[in-house]
Amino acid sequence: MRLSNLRTPCAVIDLERLERNARVMSQRVNRLGVRLRPHVKTHKCVEVAACSTRAYDAAVSALGETVYGPITVSTMAEACHFAAHGFSDITWAQPINPHRIEEAFVLMDQVERLNLLVDSHTAIDALEDYAQRAGQPYSAYLKVDVGYGRAGVDPHSQLGVDLAGRLHKSSLATFEGVLTHAGQAYACGTREEIKAIAVHERDEIVGFAQRLRGLGIEVPEVSLGSTPTLSVAEDLTGITEVRPGNYLFYDRYQSAIGACTDDDIAFSVLTTVIGCYPDRAGLVLDAGALALSKDPGAIHVDPDCGYGMVTSADGVQPFEDLSLVSLSQEHGQVTVRAPLNASDFPVGTQLRVFPNHSCLTAAKYDRYYAVRGGLIVGAWRTARGW
Amino acid sequence: MRLSNLRTPCAVIDLERLERNARVMSQRVNRLGVRLRPHVKTHKCVEVAACSTRAYDAAVSALGETVYGPITVSTMAEACHFAAHGFSDITWAQPINPHRIEEAFVLMDQVERLNLLVDSHTAIDALEDYAQRAGQPYSAYLKVDVGYGRAGVDPHSQLGVDLAGRLHKSSLATFEGVLTHAGQAYACGTREEIKAIAVHERDEIVGFAQRLRGLGIEVPEVSLGSTPTLSVAEDLTGITEVRPGNYLFYDRYQSAIGACTDDDIAFSVLTTVIGCYPDRAGLVLDAGALALSKDPGAIHVDPDCGYGMVTSADGVQPFEDLSLVSLSQEHGQVTVRAPLNASDFPVGTQLRVFPNHSCLTAAKYDRYYAVRGGLIVGAWRTARGW
Repeated sequence: MRLSNLRTPCAVIDLERLERNARVMSQRVNRLGVRLRPHVKTHKCVEVAACSTRAYDAAVSALGETVYGPITVSTMAEACHFAAHGFSDITWAQPINPHRIEEAFVLMDQVERLNLLVDSHTAIDALEDYAQRAGQPYSAYLKVDVGYGRAGVDPHSQLGVDLAGRLHKSSLATFEGVLTHAGQAYACGTREEIKAIAVHERDEIVGFAQRLRGLGIEVPEVSLGSTPTLSVAEDLTGITEVRPGNYLFYDRYQSAIGACTDDDIAFSVLTTVIGCYPDRAGLVLDAGALALSKDPGAIHVDPDCGYGMVTSADGVQPFEDLSLVSLSQEHGQVTVRAPLNASDFPVGTQLRVFPNHSCLTAAKYDRYYAVRGGLIVGAWRTARGW
Repeated sequence: MRLSNLRTPCAVIDLERLERNARVMSQRVNRLGVRLRPHVKTHKCVEVAACSTRAYDAAVSALGETVYGPITVSTMAEACHFAAHGFSDITWAQPINPHRIEEAFVLMDQVERLNLLVDSHTAIDALEDYAQRAGQPYSAYLKVDVGYGRAGVDPHSQLGVDLAGRLHKSSLATFEGVLTHAGQAYACGTREEIKAIAVHERDEIVGFAQRLRGLGIEVPEVSLGSTPTLSVAEDLTGITEVRPGNYLFYDRYQSAIGACTDDDIAFSVLTTVIGCYPDRAGLVLDAGALALSKDPGAIHVDPDCGYGMVTSADGVQPFEDLSLVSLSQEHGQVTVRAPLNASDFPVGTQLRVFPNHSCLTAAKYDRYYAVRGGLIVGAWRTARGW
């Protein structure tokens, strides 16, 4: 089946690019001497996760060691979906919601390992209480903030030491170690800026781990990860594990800040021209906010980035004169910066949009069409919800 | 079952508000002497659509006329979903994609009426061609642009006349009439500005219909609709049908521009505090971009509107000091403009977020929890995809 047979809007994965992205990252982290625990939140898809861990397995096997599919998830729904499909080593990298501890403990019984995340006494109280009543131990990371300012403890705070110490001493908890995400890398504008964040991310989390060790607290794992920092990192001394996710797909945001090139972007949306208006130099696509998401993109780098890059249906030829300037629910508005004839992009023309933020866009779809050499070779289902 | 039993994030509908919104709009359009064909794209939910058409039926029945559930849809998936649940009079209010004509004709055989939308010769060519080959007639509206600049023909253009004339003369087409959507009303900042757009919307589409009639083209229906304009319109002389959709839920955008008040908003997201950071006056919620959508809201009215209004879990008490300033995939970041103690909003606290754009937010959920008097009285499924 060919792309032209698909009903639009629909999500397309370029398999050559996906596999190359998986291979490049696997080789890089292997060279840097750390374990890869890819984040599956970008795609929520078993086949894509298998691709990333297969590539990693191959890279690791060359060194005589085999690791099967450790992954990172952002939701309990992802954890359950991947567990049901044979992934047995899972880190849920969101601070635990006390109301969902019971679900987590039920899942723990079904997998080899489910690591939880905490950054407060309240969360540990709830975990200890449940573990005590259930007579069931648990594994937890301490979430650390290295400057993003979203979740996590300050690595220079007493609270961080107290929480780590509490997990370390608990008879019910296995303290896995410390974990961070330098989300501030997304505010960078160049590869050099990202490199500086990557060094800072590593130094902060490794420094914190060393501080804890100096206090007699064992810290088995030192985990970090964002696609921008992992796409440029050159030295991960002291780190044991990394958790990039977006790198499998990449997107226009990542290429704008220098984490990849446009040729690396493996995820896109196939769309159809449903309106062509030469009098106002505009097109309307059948891909709107629900098909693409309203992520504004890297406007700090390119204020005119619009809602994605528009190309020919095969994804090969970018149309530089076409700007996807506005999205309503099911309409994408394109302005054309050149004389537009009705025959240039007549109603019915298929186009491809490479979105600003593949994670948010991919989550709109229940399935992806996997394409190799212009042929659809798979329709891959995704997990949904929470 | 109570709200506190729900796993978050999840979507909540306040039934009293939903029913009131349905009733108020039904009474208004009935008073204005037009038919209500509500747009279901906002909710994609059979129970919600039934509520809106029931309220309308009741209003119309008082005048001795009964109409059963005419609706407007934005996608073929919605059309199929509602047809399968007994809705038999459907307008697909998006310019037809030629590649999806076959599906439309298949569905036409299963319902009493499926009206399509066109605004180009190319689309009519494709419809005529298919209808000829299938030996099956079709019904179509001509889409008209009254200043939004998205889809539709200029009502003062020769093209508009030509397309209407072509549908009128076709032996295969039933020309239903003209249809518009004054989406520019969303750029308004006050109720008075919206009223001016409503008058313009009516005058433009009615004037175009009169022009066509003067040329001997019958124009049975003159259809317009946007929630802002229909929330304030005072005179719809010449209009036969209206298609508001968002009004059932409303949202923070609509209240910001004056189309409703915050007390009218019937749709919200229940969320849980998963991080509380007094040192940086911040909270993290488990509702991020996938749970709320990244619609920036009515920033032309309120640049600091953030990603929605945060209230107590019962939706009653707004927390004015809490601003939902940033969304990543599964994290919502709240800044607190007052001294924050860990005991104010401890990890595990449930809150409610009334989103900027209920259409885009609602589409994130496979089900809504319908709540009356604090009790969950229904879990309503939704349609998805295209």
